Amino acid sequence: MRKTAILGIGQTKIGEHWEKSLREIGGDAAFAAMQDAGLEKVDALFVGNMLSPIVNGQNQLGTFFSDWIGLWKQEAVKIEAACGSGAAAFRAALMAVASGDVESALVVGVEKMTDKAGRDVTASLATAADADYEIEQGVSFVGINALVMRRYMHEFGWKHEDFAPFSINAHANAMHNPYARLHEKISIDKFEKSSMISTPINLLDASPTGDGAAAIIIVPAEKVVRQPRIVVSASAASTDTIAVHSRKDPMFLQAAYTSSKRAYEMAGITPNDIDFFELHDAFSIMAALSLEANGFAERGQGVRLGLDNEISIQGRLPVCTRGGLKARGHPVGATGVYQLVEVVQQLRGECGKTQVESAKIGMAQNIGGSGATVLTHILQYD
Amino acid sequence: MRKTAILGIGQTKIGEHWEKSLREIGGDAAFAAMQDAGLEKVDALFVGNMLSPIVNGQNQLGTFFSDWIGLWKQEAVKIEAACGSGAAAFRAALMAVASGDVESALVVGVEKMTDKAGRDVTASLATAADADYEIEQGVSFVGINALVMRRYMHEFGWKHEDFAPFSINAHANAMHNPYARLHEKISIDKFEKSSMISTPINLLDASPTGDGAAAIIIVPAEKVVRQPRIVVSASAASTDTIAVHSRKDPMFLQAAYTSSKRAYEMAGITPNDIDFFELHDAFSIMAALSLEANGFAERGQGVRLGLDNEISIQGRLPVCTRGGLKARGHPVGATGVYQLVEVVQQLRGECGKTQVESAKIGMAQNIGGSGATVLTHILQYD
Repeated sequence: MRKTAILGIGQTKIGEHWEKSLREIGGDAAFAAMQDAGLEKVDALFVGNMLSPIVNGQNQLGTFFSDWIGLWKQEAVKIEAACGSGAAAFRAALMAVASGDVESALVVGVEKMTDKAGRDVTASLATAADADYEIEQGVSFVGINALVMRRYMHEFGWKHEDFAPFSINAHANAMHNPYARLHEKISIDKFEKSSMISTPINLLDASPTGDGAAAIIIVPAEKVVRQPRIVVSASAASTDTIAVHSRKDPMFLQAAYTSSKRAYEMAGITPNDIDFFELHDAFSIMAALSLEANGFAERGQGVRLGLDNEISIQGRLPVCTRGGLKARGHPVGATGVYQLVEVVQQLRGECGKTQVESAKIGMAQNIGGSGATVLTHILQYD
Repeated sequence: MRKTAILGIGQTKIGEHWEKSLREIGGDAAFAAMQDAGLEKVDALFVGNMLSPIVNGQNQLGTFFSDWIGLWKQEAVKIEAACGSGAAAFRAALMAVASGDVESALVVGVEKMTDKAGRDVTASLATAADADYEIEQGVSFVGINALVMRRYMHEFGWKHEDFAPFSINAHANAMHNPYARLHEKISIDKFEKSSMISTPINLLDASPTGDGAAAIIIVPAEKVVRQPRIVVSASAASTDTIAVHSRKDPMFLQAAYTSSKRAYEMAGITPNDIDFFELHDAFSIMAALSLEANGFAERGQGVRLGLDNEISIQGRLPVCTRGGLKARGHPVGATGVYQLVEVVQQLRGECGKTQVESAKIGMAQNIGGSGATVLTHILQYD
């Protein structure tokens, strides 16, 4: 496998961009990445997106964007793995460059959720779950996660307020990220008084969706002279059952465990070597489960890392350093690319007040469905 | 790039499978390919599909199928490029194996179009075109192709009946393909009297959609001992503008030209070396344009190959040897994989009455949108 590196990154602010179309949002991030990389053209475009066929009435997003940004004649394709679409597109691009067939690949994760040509957003997001055996029963995607959280609290004896540190940390970090959707400090009191969505998940346990796009350019590592050179030292994908009820243990993210295990092996490191972790905190319960599955906490003890203040920028394992899904926002198919862009920002030392000191190895994990598709990437500078 | 080969193929009959679900159809093809390959497990699954989010209310089809066929913990992802989704999934799988990161990849192209959880099929297919600048004007996908056909007839002086040989040939070949949707010989008289859909495209100019799945297993070439060994000698993708009206010449498939040019170079051959060609005859006009763009006919003279009987099994360039989109059927996101499966069948010499004699090099070309995304693959045995 040819060694790969990141040459450029770009992103748009996440929000409700009523004044911008799907093409404009994706184009903005793509152009920013091209400019950052100093390239006018790339060989291939890989778009990560989940909802455009349903919400925007638009398929074929690869060519839709290659056309818009002037990459005529180049290769273009769309990758979809629900909320894991962004990292899945990144991995597909990585394979193309690693194979030697493509010399430069642009990855764009994009979502325009405030259009509503088709079904509403809750129904659209439900397509990430099992249509026949979960959604048909009337449960929503939040509902599935609420069932897991309730069971976890019961099983391991945690109270709802014990999850507060995840959201408080994410909101605190997002204050210093101009691209974040939410710029609002929250307290444990506010967390506990927030509106209930699906018991026990309240509004501050859940990440906000939104419109946004992030982009990354991948090239062979030997072509990068820029310092620090950020290389991709591991990429691994794994899956679990699509329906949560089919799992032996619904509180263990088996696919996260498998994919990070492969990634650690590929990078030749252990969880202890990870300087910071952009995890997939779609819901606060997912933050806890991620820490456990990836080797940072014992089973049932993921929330402990928050309570012990180990996840803050100065902690043992900073997470969601730019706000995470919770406060940076979760434009579903774009999220995985945002996470990777943020890892690059940390490794470049561009994060100002939320800069992780001496960050050399960063991990990003993007999850599709309730732990069904998991992609883990480890980036570092060499 | 590591050399790759095909280890197994599988397919289901195309039709209206009211008795089978999306998972069952895709699973049937996947299991057939695994059995053909003699494998019980593969490293990764790549699913090609266009319509499931809209028509079946199901996203995340990679994991949906890895779960169903028992590939828990393995990698899985979905690729979408409208009607080019099948070959796009094949190419993504190819890159993964060629990179050295994956040792065996299963590609499943699948579509279940007779469900209708969401919008109707015509509206769903329109998502392949430009939602903002084509569909918003009220034109359908067939309508766009009809405009191109009408212009072509005017520009080059052909009559509607001159397109008949494409459909007649496809229907004749499908008679001997048990997996084909249509088993019905047609005549020029029947062709001319067929119901009009969108002038000048009538029912027999257009391919029937349907439910169906096809599957292929890709492995490193050095691992295959089975004879004949079918290797992938070229894979190339290219794009054009998504809206047809944005093209300098709407009657020239620029992306087909570019992708086949790259493919010929990669394989080290010329169009003359191609023994048969599985082309993307979604409409009869597309058959003519494909022959021209890929170097088999002069501009405006694609129909001549049909009239001169050069496209039949005994002709200079047999096309649609198993029925093509026109008669084998066009389950949109699955079509590209069907084409590749058929190329393998020819190279293995398994095609009975439509076997192309001494077939050694076969080409398949899959198109997304009206020539917007084009993928060309050349397979041969060595």
